[in-house]
Amino acid sequence: MTERTLIKDLSARPDGPVTVGGWVETVRDQKKVQFVVLRDESGALQLVNPATREIDEATASDTEGAAAASAALALTESISGLSLGTFIEVAGELKHDERVKLGGLEVKVGTLDVAGVSLPEAPIAADSSLDKRLDYRWLDLRQPKNALIFRIQTTLEHAWRTWWVENGFVEIHTPKLMESPSESRAELFQLDYFELGTAYLAQSPQHFKQMAQAAGFGKVFEISPVFRADPSFTSRHATEFISVDAEISWIDSYEDVMSMQEQLLAAGFAAVKEKHGDEIRELFGIEVEVPQVPFPRLPLAEVHKVLKEARGYTVPREDGDLDPEGERQISAYVKGEFGHDFVFVTDYPTGIRPYYHMRDAETGLTKSYDLIYNGTEITTGAQREHRIDELLANAVDKGLDPAGIGEYLEFFKYGIPPHGGFGMGLARVLMLLLGEQSIRETTLLFRGPTRLAP
Amino acid sequence: MTERTLIKDLSARPDGPVTVGGWVETVRDQKKVQFVVLRDESGALQLVNPATREIDEATASDTEGAAAASAALALTESISGLSLGTFIEVAGELKHDERVKLGGLEVKVGTLDVAGVSLPEAPIAADSSLDKRLDYRWLDLRQPKNALIFRIQTTLEHAWRTWWVENGFVEIHTPKLMESPSESRAELFQLDYFELGTAYLAQSPQHFKQMAQAAGFGKVFEISPVFRADPSFTSRHATEFISVDAEISWIDSYEDVMSMQEQLLAAGFAAVKEKHGDEIRELFGIEVEVPQVPFPRLPLAEVHKVLKEARGYTVPREDGDLDPEGERQISAYVKGEFGHDFVFVTDYPTGIRPYYHMRDAETGLTKSYDLIYNGTEITTGAQREHRIDELLANAVDKGLDPAGIGEYLEFFKYGIPPHGGFGMGLARVLMLLLGEQSIRETTLLFRGPTRLAP
Repeated sequence: MTERTLIKDLSARPDGPVTVGGWVETVRDQKKVQFVVLRDESGALQLVNPATREIDEATASDTEGAAAASAALALTESISGLSLGTFIEVAGELKHDERVKLGGLEVKVGTLDVAGVSLPEAPIAADSSLDKRLDYRWLDLRQPKNALIFRIQTTLEHAWRTWWVENGFVEIHTPKLMESPSESRAELFQLDYFELGTAYLAQSPQHFKQMAQAAGFGKVFEISPVFRADPSFTSRHATEFISVDAEISWIDSYEDVMSMQEQLLAAGFAAVKEKHGDEIRELFGIEVEVPQVPFPRLPLAEVHKVLKEARGYTVPREDGDLDPEGERQISAYVKGEFGHDFVFVTDYPTGIRPYYHMRDAETGLTKSYDLIYNGTEITTGAQREHRIDELLANAVDKGLDPAGIGEYLEFFKYGIPPHGGFGMGLARVLMLLLGEQSIRETTLLFRGPTRLAP
Repeated sequence: MTERTLIKDLSARPDGPVTVGGWVETVRDQKKVQFVVLRDESGALQLVNPATREIDEATASDTEGAAAASAALALTESISGLSLGTFIEVAGELKHDERVKLGGLEVKVGTLDVAGVSLPEAPIAADSSLDKRLDYRWLDLRQPKNALIFRIQTTLEHAWRTWWVENGFVEIHTPKLMESPSESRAELFQLDYFELGTAYLAQSPQHFKQMAQAAGFGKVFEISPVFRADPSFTSRHATEFISVDAEISWIDSYEDVMSMQEQLLAAGFAAVKEKHGDEIRELFGIEVEVPQVPFPRLPLAEVHKVLKEARGYTVPREDGDLDPEGERQISAYVKGEFGHDFVFVTDYPTGIRPYYHMRDAETGLTKSYDLIYNGTEITTGAQREHRIDELLANAVDKGLDPAGIGEYLEFFKYGIPPHGGFGMGLARVLMLLLGEQSIRETTLLFRGPTRLAP
């Protein structure tokens, strides 16, 4: 490996020789001195080079001096010719100097090697339209703010997985190719599959993480891509996204699922705050809040009542589900009343929940919830119906043909404990954590109805 | 949650009341006493119940005695009626007793609740054919040996990710839906995609993890599904599998990639040995070997020489690549000579490597490697060609139409540092670690040309 020092580590190093590598962010090519701002994945650094524009006659007549002057001339020309975005490797002298605004240090260039040249004209700028930026996403991701999102993602996921592993969960990788659609036939991608005819891309790992409960795995998690042939163009929808999933057995109710999820979120946010809190404040202007456990819980019927009475808002949907404005309003209410960014909305009626959500025998409502964070839904969770007779009855009640869900029912026949779980959209969590306006900003390479590249 | 004690934790508990939950593995329904072996995700336990087969007249005439006897009769009948595989929850009295072969303890049943009934006839047994077992994979996974594979997988992946995170890598999630094929058009799944026409399923994250180098991410990793429309029926191939990928910038050569990969593997195996070494010895009869770093390295030309001279084996392929027998032979040679389970085979000729593997200007060979573990290839890695002119020349040299790789070349135009990486098949590593015969055993739910379910 190149013995690079990361730019963030320079401040702790003494003055002296150092090698750095990154891309050229700016060049100030003055007559007497040249300045380059070099950026790597950890920060930005000022490079400085006293310019040598010509070799005078006296120097030229001295053999040794001429060689050095020739090298200095070449270095100066090389810096003058640097196009922005070019990757370079520089060996030079580190000098701490409080007068340098950029981190209080600079590196005087000794040698400069061009590692990868950029075309002279950058096709996008930081203020280009989102769509244009996404066309050149690999350049857009060089923006420190955008790159930080994925270091935050790394920390968040690692904290979640660590929490799961320490709590006895098994990591599973469920297939994305399925023989039959998991939920409905709507919004499914399908493909030709050998002699078997058609395969479908999984819309969620739901089916398989329940199967893992029938296998006696007890507690499982998975972070994986899922696919929806969803023609939506909202800021919250994608045709491919990363779903964060967990499923646990031996629950008494969906309360156990909510309890697991809120602990998980708190552990993840605590890790993000500790590792990136300062950078997030600086680049996003946001103070990361580690949520207090337990999160507030409100039954959906209560939410409608509160929205009407406290906020003067009546949800205009006929099916009783919340609309995006309703989500924003109840979030604002909970923030005001309880000072909390999260709220579990519980006990949805059966009409707006799938047949496999367990129903409460007394109320007739489902033992399910949505989790709303900073005004947007990020999760649906539930206790599942694990009793095959009730499951079939629920399906028939919703007008489904039992023959169509035969494969799904198969693994309920040989014993399965009570269980439940949730699915959570990773890009939504990051969007809401960082106050971004679209999951396009918090997805590495967004996929939508009109976007399949880069 | 049910306040279950995991069976593995019972030995550390004192005699007294306890609640356990799991599925019924065996029932011995003797006249005077009933024994049930209960299994959960952590182990197996003997339950015992003194049978009450009838209520005699004296007891029946005493009110209090009659109620207790009636309950005892019901419990006995309930145990007699248990079908294997049924999930039950049992509250009872734990008693340590050295005479009990199964763990030196048993639980005397107080109450027994059936959580999920199984049909009486199990469709598979431990000795059913692999294909039959896969038809009922959720039951097959209840076998302790099969379940252990996925706890090992959990530990292995967590150790790898921890190593990456501690070494400054960024976790990325690259899209599986692509506008154009990443490598060749062979073995690609394709699907209809809105107005854009056709989308392809990613065969590897190659394209995107290189793009992350152009974005200046420095070091990235991803563990994710990839898809190959591969009609093979070997023990090593699947149409969907989990690929373990990493890519790093600022390398001097592919040696840096190999060095990273061997450290990663050693860290992962050390974690597996520590956490599961005893269980693996017991259930697989295998002593986990933590590989010494560095692994042996042999250029491909040297491998052919050694195979011929030391093993009397000439690879029957004309293109110079190793065949499966050649992989087994060189592995056996390295094990004999160096006592090592791994060997890096390096410096493949350009004819059997893709155009984006960097070529050595002197030898004309590619700066690439395969990693062979216990006789089977698990990885291809390389330094990539990051200089666009050379990349184009390589493509043309291999007879590719530059227009067809235009999108791939796009992100090389705006600066990209030298870089390289590898992809590794997760199920293969587990198969070879545990001495299994097929990746079907080490994949949660296998996908092949004739298998899309369950």
